[in-house]
Parts: sequence; C-alpha cells; structure tokens
Amino acid sequence: MSATDHLPTPGQGLIGWGGMLDARERVSAQLHFTAELQPPGMLHARLLRSVWPHARITHIDVSRARDLPGVAAVVTGQDVLARPGVQATFGPILRDQPLLAFDKVRFVGDPLVAVAAEDLDTAQEALDLVDVEYAELPAVFDTDTALAEGAPVLHDEKPRSGPTPGDVILHRDASHHSNVCNYFRLRHGDVEAGFRAADHVFEDQFTSPAIEHVPLETHACVATLDGDSLTVWATTQTPHNLRAQLAEVFGLPLSRVRVVVPRLGGAFGAKCYTKIEPLTAFLALVTRRPVRLVLTREEQAVTLTKHAVTIHMKTGVRRDGTLVARQSTCHFNTGAYADIGPRLIKNGGYGTAGPYHIPHVWVDSFAVYTNLPPAGAFRGYGAPQGAWAYESQMDLIAERLDLDPVELRCRNLLRDGQQFATGETVHDVHFADLLTRAVHAVGWDPMAAPVREGTKVRAFGAACALKGAVTPSTSTATAKLNDDGSLDILTSSVEMGQGLQTAMAIIAARRMGVPLERIHVSEVDTQVTPYDQQTSSSRSTHAMGSAVALALDDIRDQLLDLGANQLEVDRADLEVADGQVRVKGAIDRALGLSEVVRTARRGNLLGSGTFQVEGGLDPDTGQGIATVHWHQAAGAAEVEVDLETGQVRVVRYEGAVYAGQVINPVQAELQTEGSITFGVGQALFEEMVYDAGQLQNGNLGEYMLPSIKDLPAIGVMLVEHDPSRADEMADVHGLGETSLPPVAPAIGNAVYRATGVRIRDLPITPEKVLRGLRDQPPSPSGRGLGVPSPSGRGLGEG
Amino acid sequence: MSATDHLPTPGQGLIGWGGMLDARERVSAQLHFTAELQPPGMLHARLLRSVWPHARITHIDVSRARDLPGVAAVVTGQDVLARPGVQATFGPILRDQPLLAFDKVRFVGDPLVAVAAEDLDTAQEALDLVDVEYAELPAVFDTDTALAEGAPVLHDEKPRSGPTPGDVILHRDASHHSNVCNYFRLRHGDVEAGFRAADHVFEDQFTSPAIEHVPLETHACVATLDGDSLTVWATTQTPHNLRAQLAEVFGLPLSRVRVVVPRLGGAFGAKCYTKIEPLTAFLALVTRRPVRLVLTREEQAVTLTKHAVTIHMKTGVRRDGTLVARQSTCHFNTGAYADIGPRLIKNGGYGTAGPYHIPHVWVDSFAVYTNLPPAGAFRGYGAPQGAWAYESQMDLIAERLDLDPVELRCRNLLRDGQQFATGETVHDVHFADLLTRAVHAVGWDPMAAPVREGTKVRAFGAACALKGAVTPSTSTATAKLNDDGSLDILTSSVEMGQGLQTAMAIIAARRMGVPLERIHVSEVDTQVTPYDQQTSSSRSTHAMGSAVALALDDIRDQLLDLGANQLEVDRADLEVADGQVRVKGAIDRALGLSEVVRTARRGNLLGSGTFQVEGGLDPDTGQGIATVHWHQAAGAAEVEVDLETGQVRVVRYEGAVYAGQVINPVQAELQTEGSITFGVGQALFEEMVYDAGQLQNGNLGEYMLPSIKDLPAIGVMLVEHDPSRADEMADVHGLGETSLPPVAPAIGNAVYRATGVRIRDLPITPEKVLRGLRDQPPSPSGRGLGVPSPSGRGLGEG
Repeated sequence: MSATDHLPTPGQGLIGWGGMLDARERVSAQLHFTAELQPPGMLHARLLRSVWPHARITHIDVSRARDLPGVAAVVTGQDVLARPGVQATFGPILRDQPLLAFDKVRFVGDPLVAVAAEDLDTAQEALDLVDVEYAELPAVFDTDTALAEGAPVLHDEKPRSGPTPGDVILHRDASHHSNVCNYFRLRHGDVEAGFRAADHVFEDQFTSPAIEHVPLETHACVATLDGDSLTVWATTQTPHNLRAQLAEVFGLPLSRVRVVVPRLGGAFGAKCYTKIEPLTAFLALVTRRPVRLVLTREEQAVTLTKHAVTIHMKTGVRRDGTLVARQSTCHFNTGAYADIGPRLIKNGGYGTAGPYHIPHVWVDSFAVYTNLPPAGAFRGYGAPQGAWAYESQMDLIAERLDLDPVELRCRNLLRDGQQFATGETVHDVHFADLLTRAVHAVGWDPMAAPVREGTKVRAFGAACALKGAVTPSTSTATAKLNDDGSLDILTSSVEMGQGLQTAMAIIAARRMGVPLERIHVSEVDTQVTPYDQQTSSSRSTHAMGSAVALALDDIRDQLLDLGANQLEVDRADLEVADGQVRVKGAIDRALGLSEVVRTARRGNLLGSGTFQVEGGLDPDTGQGIATVHWHQAAGAAEVEVDLETGQVRVVRYEGAVYAGQVINPVQAELQTEGSITFGVGQALFEEMVYDAGQLQNGNLGEYMLPSIKDLPAIGVMLVEHDPSRADEMADVHGLGETSLPPVAPAIGNAVYRATGVRIRDLPITPEKVLRGLRDQPPSPSGRGLGVPSPSGRGLGEG
Repeated sequence: MSATDHLPTPGQGLIGWGGMLDARERVSAQLHFTAELQPPGMLHARLLRSVWPHARITHIDVSRARDLPGVAAVVTGQDVLARPGVQATFGPILRDQPLLAFDKVRFVGDPLVAVAAEDLDTAQEALDLVDVEYAELPAVFDTDTALAEGAPVLHDEKPRSGPTPGDVILHRDASHHSNVCNYFRLRHGDVEAGFRAADHVFEDQFTSPAIEHVPLETHACVATLDGDSLTVWATTQTPHNLRAQLAEVFGLPLSRVRVVVPRLGGAFGAKCYTKIEPLTAFLALVTRRPVRLVLTREEQAVTLTKHAVTIHMKTGVRRDGTLVARQSTCHFNTGAYADIGPRLIKNGGYGTAGPYHIPHVWVDSFAVYTNLPPAGAFRGYGAPQGAWAYESQMDLIAERLDLDPVELRCRNLLRDGQQFATGETVHDVHFADLLTRAVHAVGWDPMAAPVREGTKVRAFGAACALKGAVTPSTSTATAKLNDDGSLDILTSSVEMGQGLQTAMAIIAARRMGVPLERIHVSEVDTQVTPYDQQTSSSRSTHAMGSAVALALDDIRDQLLDLGANQLEVDRADLEVADGQVRVKGAIDRALGLSEVVRTARRGNLLGSGTFQVEGGLDPDTGQGIATVHWHQAAGAAEVEVDLETGQVRVVRYEGAVYAGQVINPVQAELQTEGSITFGVGQALFEEMVYDAGQLQNGNLGEYMLPSIKDLPAIGVMLVEHDPSRADEMADVHGLGETSLPPVAPAIGNAVYRATGVRIRDLPITPEKVLRGLRDQPPSPSGRGLGVPSPSGRGLGEG
C-alpha cells in the first residue's frame, strides 16, 4: 500500500473520480491556483480604472498615493511610456492595448493607474488618493453608431501590427481613421447568380449580446524578476503566445521570459492571449520585487467579453428547400481594443454558412471598435452567434416554405465529398446522422401538436452547427520514460478543468501499456515544456494528444533498439506491448520497460513529437482550408413556455456530437453537458447590460447564470468513427465547444413552435416572449397567443 | 535598450561579471533560495535531536507538545514506522538511516522528534514540551575502538541494501555484527614480491580529521503534496537520486515525485544524497500541508562531515627513489550512518596509490561506523586524505634517501601509457609538467636554504595529486531553439555557485553561434528536466557539457534538414554557423536560425543528447576503469613559520591544474582559487572537535575557517590541451576539486623544511608545531629548533 491515500487505486478506473485523475484533490480544496502564490517579498497590486467610456486624460496626481507608507510603486501610463525599452502597448494581432491608458481612456474600466503595496488594503487606500482629471469625449457603444459617418473614432492612429499569427490578415482599410478594427470577406461561387436562381430570398437579422465567461477563477498573475529571467505565473490559455508578447514588451529574448501556468479554475476563452501580465511584470520591474495582481469579479467582467454581434442574413432557396445562396453581413462589437477580434471575425464570418451545402456564399465580417470592454475568444469562438442566426433562419425558411424544419435541414446538410463555403471538400461529416439522433432522442414526434396544460405550452425545436478548429496549428510534446517504467509527459497545454492532463495520461497509458497512476502530465512552464500553440479551439486532445503519441512512438523506437541489443534479437522481431519489450510470439522473452532503461543506464529515455496541421484562407476570397476537421453537433430541445409569465423552461435537451474517437468517456460526456449548460444560459438569461457604457450587472448577484434548477434533463450522444481504424489519434475530434452553438437556436425554435413568437435577439427573456405574445397579430396559420399551431406541418406534406 | 537593466550588455563579456551570468543578482541579493520559499498554507518544522551518542529510546511523551495551540503535527520514529506504505529508513547504498530514530539514537544530534507548526517559535516551544527517556549505551568514536573485539555495535541488523549505484559492491563481511560498514580492496601486481624487491620499505601513518563543509546555505527543504504529486524543493546536488529515494520511501512511481532544486548557496558535497527531505515530506503527508524545514548552522554541522581517516602507508622504494610497492590500509570513520561512505572508500582507497607508477599495490579501505555524525561526500571525495598521506610520505622518503623531493616525484609520476594501480593505462597525463610549473612559479630555488628573519623561517614545499571522476556516469540534456533564435537549455545539473549555468551557456553559445544573453539554462525540476546522475565529482562541465553539445548537434541536424528544404539546396551544401543556416561559401544564401524555425512553424526545435561514460572496478581486485579521465594537479607553497608561536602563515601558493580545455577562464581560475583556499583551511585550521561524541565547535564562532587574512598570494595555472582538437568537449577536465588535495601536503612539507617538524595529523596547528619543535632531538642533519638545514640537498647530489 502506498503512503499517499490520495491516489486512485490501481485498476479502479476513472469513472469513480469524475473522469479526472485529480478529482479528489479538486473537490477537497487541495489544488492551488495562481492567486494563492506568494514568492518571498511579494507586493500586492491594485488598479485604478476609468469611470468614463471615452475621455482624454488631462492630469493624474499620484503624489499623495506615492507618499502613503507601505506603497512600493504607483505607476501611470506615462510612467510606462517613459520607461526605456518597454513597449507601452500590446495585443495578439494589433498592438493597440496600453498596459495603462496614457493618452485617453476608451471604456469604463480601462486601467489608468497601478499600485504595488505591502498589502491589498494599502494598495486600495493609495488608489483612493489618486486624482484623475478627464476631458470627456463622445462615445460609441453599438456597431451601427460606431460605423456611422462622423462617429467618434477610438484609435486615432493605426495601431502597430506585428507578425500576424496564422492566416489573420489585417484588411487594408481597417483601423485607419475609422472604427473598423478588421474585416474578413468570403467569396464563394456567384452569390448574385445564386439569388437570381432562387425561388425565394429571405432576409433576417439576428443579434447576440455581449456576455461574460465567468470562470470561477478570475485573472491572476504573479511576476518576478528571478536572476536573469522574468518569470510570470499566469492564468492563461496561451502561454507561448504570452511569452512572446512579454518578450516583445520588455525587449527580452524568449529564453529570458518564463511563463508558468498552474491549473486554471476555468477559462472558456477569457484567458486567451495577454491580459494583465505585462502590467504585473512592469510593476515587478519597477519595484524589483515579486508582484501579485488578482482581479476582482467586477474587474473580470470588464476584462474580456463575448462579442455582441449583429448578423444580417440573406438566404436564397429553391421551392423544395434547397439552399442556393447566402449573403451574410456580420458586425462584431469588439470593444475598445482588438484582442483576438481581428481573427475571430474570420471564424464567425465563414461560420455563418452553417453546416450546409450552399453553392454561392458571400460574407462580409467586421470587427468594430466601440467604447465597451474588449471582446475576444469565448467558448465557440463566433460559431454560436452564427448558429443563432442561421439556425433561427432555417426554421423561418421552413415555416415560410411550409416544410418540416428537420427535413429542410437534412436536405441541405453537408455530406462527404461536398464543398463548404471555403471551397474545401468535407470528409467524415455526420450532420444528418447527428440531427436525426438528437430529434429522435428528445422524443419529438413531428406529427404531434404542441401540448398545452393550463397556461403552459410544450414544444420541440432542433438545430445543428459546425465549427472549425484553429488551423494551421502546431503542438509539441516530450516524454520521459523513467527507469522505474513510469512516464513524465511534458506539454505546454493548459489544464483548466477540462481534463487535459487526464486525457494525455490516458493516451499515453494506451500507447505504452503503462498504468495510468504511473503517468504524470506536467504543468506548463515555457522554459522547459515545449511549444504548444494554444489551449483553445477544442484542439488539445486531438493536436496535443497526437504529439504525445508521437513522442511515445519516439521512445518506442529507442526501446526497440535497446531491446534488440539487450535480448540479442533482430529489432524487427520485437514489439512494445503491455509495458514490455518482447519477442513477438514469445512471451517468455520479454523485458519490462524499467529493465530496458536500467540496463541501458540512461536514467530515462526521452522522446519528442510535433504535430502540425496546415491550412489557411485566402485573404481576398476566404477560400482555402479553414480547419483540420469540422466539429459537428446537433441538438434538440423540448421547452415549456408559460404563456402568462413568458417564462421559458427547457424540459429536456438531447445533444449529439461527433467525437470521432472518445479518449475519456466520462469527461467527453461532462464536456458536452457543460456546453449545453452554457447554451441554456445564453439562450435564456445571459447578457451584459450597459447604460452609457457603464456595466449594470458586473457581479454574480445581478448577472444571471443558469442555476441547477434552470437546467433541463440533458442527454448526450457521443458518435464515434469506426473503431478499427489504424491510428486512433487521427480520428479524435475535439468537443469542448461543439455542442454549444445548437443550443440557443434549438430553444428559440422550440419557443417559436410553442408560442408563435420568434425571438431574434438573445437572450429569450420572459419580457420578450410576453411582448411577442402581446404584439402578435391574429395569424392565419393559427399561431398566436395560446393557440399554437399543429406541429409537424410540412413533414411529408411540403 | 532593454527594459531590464540586470542583463549583461551584449558583447560585454563575462569577466566584468565575475565569470557568471547572474553575478549582479548574486551580489545584490536578488537571488532566492529554498529557505525563502513559502507555498500557501505552509507549516514550519523543527527537530528534536539526541543528546546522547548511543542510547536506546525507552519512552517519548509528545502529548503536551501536541496540545500546544498552533502545532499541526508532532511525529516520532514510531509514527513513521507505523505509517503504512512508508519505509522508515533511507540511504543511497545502505538503507540504514531512519527518518527519525525509532529504536535507538546513534550520535549526538540524531533526530528523534519532528514538529510542524504555524510558526517557528511555536515549533520550538513544542519541542521543549517533549519528554524523552533514554537508556544509555556504550559508544565508539574512533575507528580503532570501533573495530576492536567486543566493541559496541551500532547497527544490530544488517541494513537493507537496495540496488547499488555504479560499481559499489557491499563487501560480504560488511555490516554484519560488526562496525564495518563496507570494505574495498585493490590487488595490483604482487605487493609482497614488490617489498622484497625494494631497497627500503617505509611505514608511516597519517590522519585527517572530520571537518565541516560550511556551505553558506544550510540544508533546507519544502515539501508539499500538490494534487497527485509529491513536490520537494530541496538543497541537493543529486536531484534524480533524491527523487528515486523519495519514490522508494513513499511507495510512489518516479513520475509522482518532483524534485525542484533552486540555486544552492554552496554545497561542497554536503548536499549529495538524501538528507532531511523524506522527513519533511513525511510531515507534509501527515499534515496535508506544505512544510518547510531549514537547518540551523549547528544542525548543519551534525548532518554530514568529511571523513576522518587514518591511513597506514607502507611503501617500498629502490635506492634511486623508484617506487616499487605500496600497501595502504585506510580506516574511514563514516559515523553513525553509511550515507555514501561505502563508495567513498573505493575512491579514497585506490587514490592512495597517488599519481605514481607503482607496479605493486595493495589497498584495504574500510568504512567504519562510529557514534559520530555521518560522514560522506566532501570536496575531493577521499582524495585529499590520501594525498595528505602519500605526499607527506614522499617527502619523508626523499629525506630518508637524501633525494630532492621534486626530483623523487618526477622520477615516479605517471606518464602516458603507464598503468595506474587499477590496471588501467593512463593517457593525457601531465603530472610532471604541472609539478614543475608550480615549483617554478612559487620561486623555489632548490639550492637555497630556508630564510630566517628573527623568529620566522620561510621554506617551500610541493605536492601533486590525482583524483578520479565518478565512473560510469550518465548525463542527458535537452535544448529548445525558440523561434526568436534564443535557446533554452534543460539539464538536471545543479547550480550551486560553481557557475554551472554559465558554463553550459558558454558551451551552447559556442556550439550554435547564439549570443550568451539569449541563452537560458534551466534550474532542476526532475519532472521536466532530463536525467543527470549527480552534480559532484567535478563532472558537470565535462559530462553535462558534452550532453548539451550533443543536444545542440541534434538541433543542428534538424536545422540542416529544414534549411535544405527552405533554401532548396542539398543538405550537404549547408552549414550552421554564426547563428545562421547557410550555403557553404555563399554568405548571401543564409537564413537566420529564427527564420528557419518560424518558417517551419514549429514554435521551437527540440534536441536531446545523452553522454555516458563506462567503467568500474572489479570488487575482488579493484582492477578496471576507475575514471573517464584523471583530474591532475600540483601545487607549491611558500610558508613562514614563527618559531616562537608555532604559527604557520602560507605566504604564497601556486597551483597548476590540468584543465584540458577551459570553458570559462574566470570561473576556472576562481574554482581553483577556491580549492586552494579550502586546502589552506584544512592544512592549518579546520577540525571538528568532539568530547565524548559531543561536538565542541559546531558554530562559526568556534569552528575555524580561514579568513581572508589567512590566505596566501595565490597563483593559478590552467594547463590546456592542444586547442586544435576536433571536439573541444572531449578535452574538458573538471577542476572543481582538483587543486585541493595537494595543498595540505605541500604546506606540511614546507613546514617540515622550515622547522624539521613533521606533522602527520592534520591540521598543522601552532600547538603541534611548538610541540614538535620542543620534542625535536638535536639532529645530526642539522635540522631542529631554529637551525633549519640547508635545503636543496639531494637535488643533483643524491
């Protein structure tokens, strides 16, 4: 028996542990997070933030704050500007975000002054002693106003752009004397010809609001100059990108910047790219002491949001429901600073074509600066906003053509060998299968009418969606086979509660025949763990898992060489299996892995593997390879609407997702449940409410997340590929976000079927439903307040 | 200009920085050490230690201590024994040392009880509340008594031995109902025939006392169970060995034990192998909280010492001074627990043959248990004790044969192609050259008499020595070439102030043409840095440096492949030089390293290299390969002895050392100066004084280290090999200890030449000199109190 009672009993499996190797530590508060780190001599930082959405800074007086005992440093944007060798701005694509605002502030919450002090109370007290004088400027909060002629422009000068990662192209017209931050376009086929060939052309507009990510752990950073290196412990999903950004800001080689990432307490995209780390590092540089900055919940809310989007969608369709052309215009409200908005509009843009075969597609997708907090990556990365539009419109089209909405979809869903809007031919797609399964699982009888009981009506709705994974991309893993046969796996992929470390351990255990409990997967430390592009885009199990498999194949090669030497047989006669190197077909001629390494006196065997996928889109046409493979999902909802209160309850939700090859069944299911839960919140509750740029619900008392009582009965179907395929890793599809995009439109479509009220602007609040019911004209189709039409129209009758 | 003013200016070189990349941080207190670490929720530990040298523990009452508020745990040896899955003892070769004494105590200072509390004061207060009852046992303190018939035996049962590292063989008679811990023997030639063939056979006995290592940083350890891993921050020179030991003690796979080694504040062998780490980890296991244990200076003194040794040396020599046979019997006082004593006696044993060609050698070398603190690795690893014996005896022989001592040595020093006592043929040896250089540099005129001025006499003495490096051995390095062309070097070699990280950076800079300031060398983290056997034995610059070079060669291979692809030329036409991949002879067709990595979109290139040396000695004969290469040094001292006070002052010391290839000239010189400084302390001052097993001088007020005023003018000669050799790494010789062994005998020989007093027992204190002068019979040769004989006798006259 081991002394440590915290380890899973060998052979016990992971199901009892919530599918995670560290589940017991997670639920017993034994894990530690960045906000708890405390290097010797550490100072505490607090930030003063703008109270105006747009204003010129005319004067800052920090003298009283600096004089306060216990204050080590008070710095302003001007102090950053004045520091030789420091770049005053950062950003993953456009360097448009200042460490501290130095000329003007651009949103309510824009950091102005930073204090580092012996304790948090002193830091806060110092902030209270800072006097700031502003000259208020006119502000813009929505994309229409921001794009209007003569609108106040947020960024007077074209921000510096660095080498753009991946295939992000800054459009030549962007960011220059306008609030267009970036622009993506896609031209596939001849959209005008398509519309001419269509029997009907429908135009609709849909909006999604800004919402919060709400990771339980807010952003935290500890920075220290340790000897010759800047070390930053950071809550980041993009450690190597952060390392590069810090190196750029401070003029250091990458080898002198160390980014360590302890486990994250959730992320959901909020922790992609650089946030508070350069500023924390700057305070460490100024004070020559370690500095810790932890954001409050209120600060977290104004650090990054999901993009609010307005999508105008024009779709041409034949009488039989065949889609022939689509033109979509997307206005992504990217807030005051670009963050990853310039790239997100690409995914959000091409995604509006949906999982359908449409011969003619035209997309214009804009990231627009406004005086709101920056928007950026958010679980789904633009796909949910698109799905809300196209899947709501699909039901509208079905109704207009008097077709069954499921059949309409099935008629148009992409099939293997067809072209997507980016011009790439799709393979291994399963949309129709997924949709059929979801609809079937939820018990939707297309012939049955909505059921009314008292004031409550129940009905069904469905949706499907596709989502790309970031492409091109690169992941590298290394592995150490220790001389007791245990394995250390080194990656720069971030464990953020999604079970990354467990997934990598399972892949390694299968690959080498080493028991799970003898495998350890590293945390991220960019000085020692190899390159990984990012932990986002549902890519890690596939991409980093493949890299881990390659690293172990490298070790396997060495084991075969050593084994051939030690067993004195031909290498070709050996195999590595069940934790042994053995002669094929002669189980008595075998060496344990430990024995091989010990005999070789190597201490450990090292292996490495790099997994790369290629692709990218042409900047003028949006044609090319958008993704290494398509994330595919469908969902069906049963909702109950109270016609008296307008309240919507999701009774049941069935999600079907293409997983290709499931690595960790428990986690795959829980991830999908999590996506659906997110979707329910976004469908019914979540919205950041601003009044003249001032966030009105920046705390969890007022920001409405779904509670456990708001959740439906959730069913999850994980669809796998033929398991006999040679290399399981090639089939693995990420599913961390895949099931999210269909949720809101499936619910919206069900609400419509229950009430005849079509909500185009998320979330579907009781007020909007009631208003819809009230404003509803008596409808010839019989829909209307309390008179739901029979469902099933069109199915077999269209 | 960079923002961080702590970096050396590019091109500035290292000389202004004391030869170390982190020199400025070192002298400005910006480096942090293990004792300063403070994980969240950390407890502080203190130890109760035995007041008896040998006693049975009859009763321990910890109840009052446990009840003290703020105390998290009070544990005894019985608590360790009772913990399922925990091994109660440890040790690198013999598992004979308890985490806490559980049956009896074996030296004054043996830990008995450990407390973990909220603060140090509470921990200390709790210790004061512990009542221990002992039954005293007879004790042994010196090897003669310990080996005598009927002596009390320290270890009643044969300790468990694990897999012995390297070629350590536990002699079958050792550790079994006797105090012989281990026994090494060497049989080379026919020593009896050799003595018969000799014209003279001289027998002498020499002793060296136990001394302290005195690293400025005492032992410190922070242990925590972080999720599924035991993490230990430790002051250790042997991180992978410690990892294996912790895995064994706690029944964990190696992958679940993480040993992190921040920079050490000196080590000198004190931090080899496991010390306080299992106990600290045990407290973390019991309390489920991080625990820190930092030893006081007094505790450090009883944790590990240099071996006190008695060497009986019998040497047969021809009339002309040719050595023909030597028999040495070495009794190493290894203290209460074996530590690495069982292996050190091998090096200490074969080393007594000295750097001489002796056809017939017979060595018996014993590690003997006594009731003193454990002895183990100490700079020189047994070589200084041997050199004190054989180099003192060489001068005695010279005098007896009326030969010049330098000429006597030169006649016998090993030359290329001759056999050493282990039977191996030596190559690349330079002893005569080194000795000649040192004697010449110190200005020793063999024809001149000692100079007397008033009560002070000046004279010269010389000595040389050889020392092996641990063999076989293995080091692995990995390297990451980042996409800005900077390099991360990953090793498990420990920076302990010796400049390891700078040396690795220099090797990497030369190998890849990358500027020094763009290279970072990792600290040790066994979960991510690859295997290294140990940072000791002066092996790291050679062994790990070679591994780093191999890792970079691996990267170079990849660069050539990528470059061939990117430049569309044949790989064979390319070279990697000056930080570029370029077509040979066409400097305009070149890609920067950064460009190659970026174009490949790999994030970084990974390389790894393993450097192994093979060898080992036959356990019955001591014949084989003792070392990958011989560390070679000579030194010459000029001393001034005050005949009235007996005080010896070393006026000048010239050390010549074979460096093969110098990597860092500044550090190579400083390392050699450091060895000489150590030697002066050991020659004149240092000694642990015990009274019935109780250390009398366990603090730096009473333990006499040399002060800056005690040091001579020091000259250093670094002798290099032909620099045109193809691979510089093959020539690198470690020199971290090499110059230490000759110092004490050179000084002892000089004192003899000045006074006629032959000191055989270190240190050479004024009391011993005065006693020698007083006891000196009027000598026919004219030597004696105040009547130094003319020197130079024998040189050309013998």
